[in-house]
Amino acid sequence: MSDFHDPPRLPAGYRCAGRHAGLKAEGEGEDLSLFVSASPAAAAALFTRNHFPGAPIVLGRERLRGGRLQAVVANSKVSNVATGPAGLEDAREMARLASRETGVDEELVLVGSTGVIGRRLPMERIRDGIRGMGDELSVDPWPAARGIMTTDSHPKVVSVGVGDAVLTGVAKGAGMIAPDMATMLVYLFTDAALPAPELDRLLREAVDETFHLLSIDTDTSTSDMVVLMANGEAGPVPSKHFARPLREVCARLAEMVARDGEGATKLLKVRVEGAADRADARRIARAVVDSPLVKTMAHGADPNVGRILMAVGKCVECRVVPERVQGWIQDVQVVENGQRADFPDSGVRELLEEDPVKIRISLGVGSGTATALGCDLTEGYIRENAAYASS
Amino acid sequence: MSDFHDPPRLPAGYRCAGRHAGLKAEGEGEDLSLFVSASPAAAAALFTRNHFPGAPIVLGRERLRGGRLQAVVANSKVSNVATGPAGLEDAREMARLASRETGVDEELVLVGSTGVIGRRLPMERIRDGIRGMGDELSVDPWPAARGIMTTDSHPKVVSVGVGDAVLTGVAKGAGMIAPDMATMLVYLFTDAALPAPELDRLLREAVDETFHLLSIDTDTSTSDMVVLMANGEAGPVPSKHFARPLREVCARLAEMVARDGEGATKLLKVRVEGAADRADARRIARAVVDSPLVKTMAHGADPNVGRILMAVGKCVECRVVPERVQGWIQDVQVVENGQRADFPDSGVRELLEEDPVKIRISLGVGSGTATALGCDLTEGYIRENAAYASS
Repeated sequence: MSDFHDPPRLPAGYRCAGRHAGLKAEGEGEDLSLFVSASPAAAAALFTRNHFPGAPIVLGRERLRGGRLQAVVANSKVSNVATGPAGLEDAREMARLASRETGVDEELVLVGSTGVIGRRLPMERIRDGIRGMGDELSVDPWPAARGIMTTDSHPKVVSVGVGDAVLTGVAKGAGMIAPDMATMLVYLFTDAALPAPELDRLLREAVDETFHLLSIDTDTSTSDMVVLMANGEAGPVPSKHFARPLREVCARLAEMVARDGEGATKLLKVRVEGAADRADARRIARAVVDSPLVKTMAHGADPNVGRILMAVGKCVECRVVPERVQGWIQDVQVVENGQRADFPDSGVRELLEEDPVKIRISLGVGSGTATALGCDLTEGYIRENAAYASS
Repeated sequence: MSDFHDPPRLPAGYRCAGRHAGLKAEGEGEDLSLFVSASPAAAAALFTRNHFPGAPIVLGRERLRGGRLQAVVANSKVSNVATGPAGLEDAREMARLASRETGVDEELVLVGSTGVIGRRLPMERIRDGIRGMGDELSVDPWPAARGIMTTDSHPKVVSVGVGDAVLTGVAKGAGMIAPDMATMLVYLFTDAALPAPELDRLLREAVDETFHLLSIDTDTSTSDMVVLMANGEAGPVPSKHFARPLREVCARLAEMVARDGEGATKLLKVRVEGAADRADARRIARAVVDSPLVKTMAHGADPNVGRILMAVGKCVECRVVPERVQGWIQDVQVVENGQRADFPDSGVRELLEEDPVKIRISLGVGSGTATALGCDLTEGYIRENAAYASS
């Protein structure tokens, strides 16, 4: 495990600010965030594969072509998705406003928006909000981390040392979380010097093992993006030293997002071992972590082994030999050779009250492994999403 | 629409019985069912593709090889899944007991079990329960329909005339419903004369358009089966006359199952048109009907168009051209050319209070169509499944 900072801090050369611009109701906190690097940074990003990408995603793909970024401006409450050419113009204006405020070249400003889909951004408030933010930039990450929150219960920031450099990640996300080729809003900043193509490779590897195995509700957002900026202020860091801390930061943020899932009371960790290959392991881990019957079981703390077997078994395209399947809940073996093992029901019931709930499955047919992250499914999720008003 | 009977009745030559054998608690009603045809019937069946098929599924596949059946014995409360060779022996004994009781050749008896996974059947109660059931056989379908219920709120029987013949379907299912190659427990009986291979073809076609587009919670049961028996007592019926009533009976049963989904208050119908092909239409219809955010939206009656677009868009492997996508909620256009249409929010909110909730999506890229069935997601689903005890 790398050396995580407590409290987390920004790497050298980065500053940020968060403001309440009136997108959220009075008292609901910051809704506008600005992150700026003192110098242009090499950058890589992954964006949602959803067919209805938000305007910031369309703009972001354009901006990332050069492999460089210097600032990020992002708002919550309205996602600027399904808003057509006018929405894209709004996103461009947001970048322009941030550029004027910070002196950063407009082409090096990335825009992010998260919130309700299908509504135009209230541009008057955005204009007023961005004005003056340049004077508020500081090394305190929290106001900006709060500015991108929607249904999140708390801001999410982690940072870790990588030799002389620092890697810091800021994330938001609690619902519509089943990232596909990208995820929620995640901004990763480092002062290490690494070229953009190398950042891209490292980022894909890290995301594949972390955010791509994270699911709160199987729903893939239209605004997902994960961005990594490296301004080089701490000098070069070899890729091989950067890969692990990057994966660990992503894993920790993914875990924070899962644990903060809408209505969730417990983190759910599903580890699959001995699968025919990595693809099978990933598919089965996701099937178990996504199963509403497994999720409600984790919530109700009932050791319902049948639901675990059901979820493994419904992956009909994967190689599963029932007699070879072993399973554990919190390290107690509950499945033995494809059948319910003889275990103390009440003991496992007590263990299931703990957080996180860990389910481990060994398939015994190969060497593929994967760990998927999710959360329990509770009445809180229903309440939050049935009551959510889109207007 | 075919001529549905009200009340439903059994076709000529079929009788059935239902009993409380002590598998369910006192007062919870029938838990054991027996269906018998006066003569051997041509038969076809589809079984779950789950990797952990129950013992009755393993036995059923064996029995169906001959394409003939004469009786069905089924119990609720314990599914006889993940019980190994001893469980298979229990299933065989159930068939033997029903054979002795009815005089039907043991090889022509199909067994069905539904309920908790990973527990042995209480065979003493099954033995006592089956004894004497032969004397209780009648043309009243309700006790037997109740005997296979688990979390169902009511028994499900429909029947329809097909020329001089009758087709009757009996179903159970309310949770762990996302049939794959088969479904829940569904028994279809007809007195039409049709050869087994023809029954098999007709059944596959009907199930593909009905039960395979049904999902309550995305979880595929280990006990799913749908069986069609034709004893020929009403004489031959041409396949081309049988196909439509069969599809309609399956569709109506699928709708009854969806509407009776655990905790559900509304049926959800998602129609996709103009998809690149049938596979795309099916996948997108399922994605929308399965999306927890669309399901909670239906529950909360909020016209959150963004969630519909999100669910369509997350089918990354399907052909979706955002500008061509149109969408309707209860016949009000809410998506126009991939963007939120201008519609009266409060009006659609009122329409969403109605049952069923109908969502229609036109993709404008081909001629593939599909209609998927599901239900809203409510606190009732969570309560029922978090409280469910597996022991």
